[in-house]
Amino acid sequence: MGDAQKPLFRRIALIGIGLIGSSVARIAMENGTLAEEVVANARTQKSLDRVVELGIAHRVELDPAKAVEGADCVMLCAPVGAYAALAEQIAPHLAPGCIVTDVGSTKQSVIRDVGPLIPDGVHFVPGHPMAGTEFSGPDSGFSTLFEGRWTLLTPPPGTDEESVEKIAELWRRCGSMIEVMEPAHHDRVVAIVSHLPHLIAFTICGTADDLADESRQQVLKFAAAGFRDFTRIAASDPTMWRDVFLNNREALLEMLARFTEDASAMARAVRWGDASYIEDKIQRSRGIRKSLIELKQA
Amino acid sequence: MGDAQKPLFRRIALIGIGLIGSSVARIAMENGTLAEEVVANARTQKSLDRVVELGIAHRVELDPAKAVEGADCVMLCAPVGAYAALAEQIAPHLAPGCIVTDVGSTKQSVIRDVGPLIPDGVHFVPGHPMAGTEFSGPDSGFSTLFEGRWTLLTPPPGTDEESVEKIAELWRRCGSMIEVMEPAHHDRVVAIVSHLPHLIAFTICGTADDLADESRQQVLKFAAAGFRDFTRIAASDPTMWRDVFLNNREALLEMLARFTEDASAMARAVRWGDASYIEDKIQRSRGIRKSLIELKQA
Repeated sequence: MGDAQKPLFRRIALIGIGLIGSSVARIAMENGTLAEEVVANARTQKSLDRVVELGIAHRVELDPAKAVEGADCVMLCAPVGAYAALAEQIAPHLAPGCIVTDVGSTKQSVIRDVGPLIPDGVHFVPGHPMAGTEFSGPDSGFSTLFEGRWTLLTPPPGTDEESVEKIAELWRRCGSMIEVMEPAHHDRVVAIVSHLPHLIAFTICGTADDLADESRQQVLKFAAAGFRDFTRIAASDPTMWRDVFLNNREALLEMLARFTEDASAMARAVRWGDASYIEDKIQRSRGIRKSLIELKQA
Repeated sequence: MGDAQKPLFRRIALIGIGLIGSSVARIAMENGTLAEEVVANARTQKSLDRVVELGIAHRVELDPAKAVEGADCVMLCAPVGAYAALAEQIAPHLAPGCIVTDVGSTKQSVIRDVGPLIPDGVHFVPGHPMAGTEFSGPDSGFSTLFEGRWTLLTPPPGTDEESVEKIAELWRRCGSMIEVMEPAHHDRVVAIVSHLPHLIAFTICGTADDLADESRQQVLKFAAAGFRDFTRIAASDPTMWRDVFLNNREALLEMLARFTEDASAMARAVRWGDASYIEDKIQRSRGIRKSLIELKQA
């Protein structure tokens, strides 16, 4: 890491400045090794005003086309459903040699929506830092968000190796570990480890909310450990998650179908009093938890 | 609380000394206001040896019948599936005027299994302290477990009021808040706030574990926030949870059926791209989270 002191990029443009974007911005401003200049773009002037107040960018731009001008790194940090329109807006303004990357939780959709719009001479390295909290907006970011967490890069075949390495190095400088992965494989893995748990959490909150009013009040009053943990997950950003679900449809529906079959089998065991089936399943879950602890992911 | 210094009971017998039982034991030994003498019973000598090492009881007894002899409070802290056999063993040895209570997560089953075996002159006050962690055994308890948490009491009609008040006071001295509730209503509320979330967590761990081996390794490696939280819940004690599921069958299956319908509706929205449906559901979950935070249950 002899060149760790030298900034990787001259100018990074962050398109979207929520939890992930504003965390990258904070790191860039604090350690100075990501880029010499940080430009922040957001959908609303209000968010940009807040960025200025927080002092987490050198410059703010409401127009994404202007934000990317002259940048040698452009990072899309908006909900993935906004990527196609954003790519159309910024494409004609991307500087030759620029690297476009992103932080979206779905990767096949990003390659589908953004890939074809990237001009010749511009590099495209899709990425996904697997870090987050249930909070959103420019105030929610913090500079240790990516420490010890994985960032998955899913470059399409033929992507410039040097550009992949530069984005990998950017995330390493954010404290992240790197793995390169097939986009389709990425989407299946995150469907089970992240998207399905969120879908379930959103759903069970609704199920509870639909109970007759007296029970509903008591659900809130007596929220035990299980439900409380689910509501924490369920507090996440609606637009981001709506877009994730719609853009990882196939993998998410397949994982949900598998889960539903398994839940039906569990229901059947409960109905017919199959104690050993139930106990087996719980034992197995414990095993997974143990593996996570061993892998330091718990 | 003028008599807060005087022990409530002369001798409390804890039948089962896992997370809940050993937490009550620790409180009783530490503050001296629950009982003058603490007797611990467990299914294995090994657990009792550990109780002695930890110094969290005055006396240990491997035979439940001997453990309850001369006690004026008997608290069942074993998995609810063991209650019927335990009640049969202890019933002939209960002292007149003794109060039998319990800490099980299902209350109709406890009234069904234990109620008929309680001798005349002995009082029966079913209870459920809504506190826990994913750990189990005598080492897992701690004296602040019940602080700020609810304990639900579900006395059957005609239960001696004074006995109900003594058990309520015992839990208040453990730091708990008290609510008296219909047993059937209790079972519905906990089915949605606790039992269903656990069933879901156990199930999704199995679903992940069934994935083809390469994905499975990556699931563990990249366990994101959602899945990780689910595995924490899923690490809970297998025997306890097996018994809970089997003893709250009707309410649990009803809540699971409601949840499954809601998950199907969400799947349909994902399949057909119904963005506003998905966003509505997520917004609603956030509302529930907000209510929990306002009620200080988050």
